[in-house]
Amino acid sequence: MFDILHKLGIQSTSVDDVYQSLTTREGLSGWWANDTHGKCNVGDVIQFRFKLKDRTANIDMKVLDLEPAKKVLWQVVDGPKEWIGTQVSWQLSQEDSWTIVLFKHQGWQEPVEFMHHCSTKWAIFLLSLKLLHETGKGTPNPKDYKLESWE
Amino acid sequence: MFDILHKLGIQSTSVDDVYQSLTTREGLSGWWANDTHGKCNVGDVIQFRFKLKDRTANIDMKVLDLEPAKKVLWQVVDGPKEWIGTQVSWQLSQEDSWTIVLFKHQGWQEPVEFMHHCSTKWAIFLLSLKLLHETGKGTPNPKDYKLESWE
Repeated sequence: MFDILHKLGIQSTSVDDVYQSLTTREGLSGWWANDTHGKCNVGDVIQFRFKLKDRTANIDMKVLDLEPAKKVLWQVVDGPKEWIGTQVSWQLSQEDSWTIVLFKHQGWQEPVEFMHHCSTKWAIFLLSLKLLHETGKGTPNPKDYKLESWE
Repeated sequence: MFDILHKLGIQSTSVDDVYQSLTTREGLSGWWANDTHGKCNVGDVIQFRFKLKDRTANIDMKVLDLEPAKKVLWQVVDGPKEWIGTQVSWQLSQEDSWTIVLFKHQGWQEPVEFMHHCSTKWAIFLLSLKLLHETGKGTPNPKDYKLESWE
């Protein structure tokens, strides 16, 4: 199994605010997919839709675990075939004036080129989450940083 | 062993130009460390220096392999203790109007938090490399995107 790992600090004194951005439709649409549907409680499936060049990409995440201001765990139940069954975990903590985000997209079967792509892409979205909290405006959706011709 | 993986396309018709940015002091200083020293041929050690908040971080890379417009392989010979002995590999290819960069920082002993940090940081520098070629100006050095308080 192979994992995508990221970590970044957000200049914010409210770990709760960042937690809200991972656990509400409004929050998620502000930094990841602005076309986000569904409820975000444990057991719910959140539906993310991304418009690509010639199709819409669907990602459905089942919420497996939530610990307010500390932890979010999703399982991919629909999406790119390489994503099915993988998990996305978020750990939050507060260090002085920084909210620290520890991110894992874990359980890839093989380190395929698409995994390399998704690693870079997750970093871009994490920076979007950072921007959302530091400036009030994120940069959701792939078109904001086109990494490949098919996006 | 654990690897950081990234992939991105640069809107450029010249894979040679991107190769130059990985194999010349001028190129490297335009997107990674503007304080870069040393020669860049096979067997040489390239010295990268980053000014952090209260110290200078050194990274020394020995060039292990070069294939013009295709491949660059470095071994870390000095730097953060978790980096010593790891390798950084670059594979380049051209797909229509895109130069594709496949990046690996491979051979980490453990998936420590610092590895998560470096994964996000490499993505930022890869985006800097992309900007350099797409706009003529990269964003070298950590201060351009401060991810943690110690940077």
